[in-house]
Amino acid sequence: MKERLRQLRSHLLVNGLDAVIISSPANIVYYSGFSGFSSIERDGYLYITQKEGYICTGALYAEEVKHTIAHLTLLEYSGTVSLSTQLASLTKKQRLKRVGYEADNMTVSEWQNIKKTVPGLTQVDLRSVRERKNSDEVKNIRKAAAIAGSALSSILPRIKSGITEKELVFRLEDEIRKDVFDIAFPTIVAFGANAAIPHHKSNDTKLKNDDLILIDFGAVSNEYRSDMTRTFFIGKATAEQKKAYKAVLTAQQKAATYITSKLSSRRAKRGEIPKELINKNRERSLSSLEMTKHEISTSGVDKVAREYLITQGYPPIPHSLGHGIGLEVHEFPRLSPHSKGTLEEGMVFSIEPGVYLPGKFGIRIEDLYTIQNGTLKQLTASTSQLLTL
Amino acid sequence: MKERLRQLRSHLLVNGLDAVIISSPANIVYYSGFSGFSSIERDGYLYITQKEGYICTGALYAEEVKHTIAHLTLLEYSGTVSLSTQLASLTKKQRLKRVGYEADNMTVSEWQNIKKTVPGLTQVDLRSVRERKNSDEVKNIRKAAAIAGSALSSILPRIKSGITEKELVFRLEDEIRKDVFDIAFPTIVAFGANAAIPHHKSNDTKLKNDDLILIDFGAVSNEYRSDMTRTFFIGKATAEQKKAYKAVLTAQQKAATYITSKLSSRRAKRGEIPKELINKNRERSLSSLEMTKHEISTSGVDKVAREYLITQGYPPIPHSLGHGIGLEVHEFPRLSPHSKGTLEEGMVFSIEPGVYLPGKFGIRIEDLYTIQNGTLKQLTASTSQLLTL
Repeated sequence: MKERLRQLRSHLLVNGLDAVIISSPANIVYYSGFSGFSSIERDGYLYITQKEGYICTGALYAEEVKHTIAHLTLLEYSGTVSLSTQLASLTKKQRLKRVGYEADNMTVSEWQNIKKTVPGLTQVDLRSVRERKNSDEVKNIRKAAAIAGSALSSILPRIKSGITEKELVFRLEDEIRKDVFDIAFPTIVAFGANAAIPHHKSNDTKLKNDDLILIDFGAVSNEYRSDMTRTFFIGKATAEQKKAYKAVLTAQQKAATYITSKLSSRRAKRGEIPKELINKNRERSLSSLEMTKHEISTSGVDKVAREYLITQGYPPIPHSLGHGIGLEVHEFPRLSPHSKGTLEEGMVFSIEPGVYLPGKFGIRIEDLYTIQNGTLKQLTASTSQLLTL
Repeated sequence: MKERLRQLRSHLLVNGLDAVIISSPANIVYYSGFSGFSSIERDGYLYITQKEGYICTGALYAEEVKHTIAHLTLLEYSGTVSLSTQLASLTKKQRLKRVGYEADNMTVSEWQNIKKTVPGLTQVDLRSVRERKNSDEVKNIRKAAAIAGSALSSILPRIKSGITEKELVFRLEDEIRKDVFDIAFPTIVAFGANAAIPHHKSNDTKLKNDDLILIDFGAVSNEYRSDMTRTFFIGKATAEQKKAYKAVLTAQQKAATYITSKLSSRRAKRGEIPKELINKNRERSLSSLEMTKHEISTSGVDKVAREYLITQGYPPIPHSLGHGIGLEVHEFPRLSPHSKGTLEEGMVFSIEPGVYLPGKFGIRIEDLYTIQNGTLKQLTASTSQLLTL
């Protein structure tokens, strides 16, 4: 936590800010360790200055915060003494001139209220602070993936025709939750033509013989989430389905291979650099020219899988190829045609190509990967070979 | 849905608006019937003009929206054609001058993007549109409450000392979910001193003999939520606990009785009004003077329970006495010392006084009520008498 706050403060310095108001629930967890606030309602904020750190909340959470969050000072607001009054008094007392806020999270109403009393409110982009994970974070995501994977393994033999999508959601989530783990997001179970809708909302559709099942789900370990999609066949897969499955799997493999080969040529290049230069910071020891050459642009990875599926005669993937994951299911980096940025050491992201044929069926295969010591590692362990139940 | 859109359009007219951008997930469900968008991420918007209605989303949901939402036109946006470009072109084509948006929901980033291309962006408050429920909405909330109540009844006999808070959460939620209903919000289970934290996050604390259990939970029926809190005793309740329980229950009853008596004096008054005046619209047939006299201010109801507990020597309730409920767990009306507004026909709200004694224990009793035909009706049916398990 200390290291995170240190990094945040240097991010503020670089951006010429004296303090920052953090409102997004995931960033609040990241910098405070307090995970009690709702992810839907606004239960609290952090106020981090160069010297101090505050956790701001109402009476509902004050007692718990006071006793569990030692490294931040409780700043309680209420109907009588509002958050903006509290912030204004601190800002004045500590002579803070420029105060950052998360424009992609704060609502217009909140911003209007706070800017009335806090001068120098300036937007700051914190969306990329959590992109690179440390080994503990990766360990948690790996554990969440393992829990989800083993839940799937236990329910697979029990899937019989006649079960509804909603029942299957229940059984899978139950497997995750019975060991007192949480689900990462509402599970998607889609049968047959419903799988052609990428984010189908599971309903009372019954599983038929020779149907197909798409399952997109995840678990949570210590607030870190996993995400995986598998597509299975009941009875027989048609030749068209088998072909599409193979294409999706190949698209995923091509994207992974692309990353792997870029990484290995980067490693090879690094081998040529004199040892005295690569001591402490391997990343930085590459010259910027070298870096550009071995850069793995997120849009480039997306392109590899996207174009392959198009050459195979399938419609363009109606979503990004992948997304970062951690405290939130969808975070940075994004792997899409429009995404900027590159894949770097410590990032954790999904690769999830899909083929969706409206009225017929849909196939998506999704796995999580990370870059660890310059190598691509897969975090989800379940087989992605075509399985017929 | 038609009636809701008609009401929305007249709300726009009154506010001098030609159209409105709706971003809050609950209002999207309310006006479109589409419940597929995430309540955490931004998956779509509605754009309602005086004559037309659009549902705006990306490729991920476009297929599903197109086939399920007949009364709205799909407006698809993407990385190439952004939402603001789409809105700008419609706004120009239809010569819309003033366009409302939900300032309490839209983020500063979204607002900045949209206002670049959509002139006349004006904030509009839609938070009270869903306050008064129709009979179908009340029926769903009542059903959700019944599901939750019967889930509680089934697990009560199985609660034994040694169980952890998290395990009890799992068992209760499992009862709700096994019949393919959803939970309304993350269940709060708090043992002993943990119950002194109003929104305690359930953990691995084990239930002991002579402990106390606070359970705050709800179910969902057709997107409508219920909410109920009960406090139980294992083994023996102490005299101090019994006294606090009685005080909390009395505070709740006093608040309910206050509403009931106001309503009945309003009904009595209405009886004196000549029949020809009370034909179609009973509410409006009361003169404004009469209305004020029989007004049930939300802050007044809060005060009844709040002050009673203070006179009994307990600390002030660290939260509002109650809140509206429907598509969201917390919506209008709010029953708090600072809330404006009055209780009216069709509103559904909780009354949930609590006593929290840090380090010792906490007691909260929460039930849902509605005003139907000028009478206060309780929607939650479980007994609130002191139960020792």
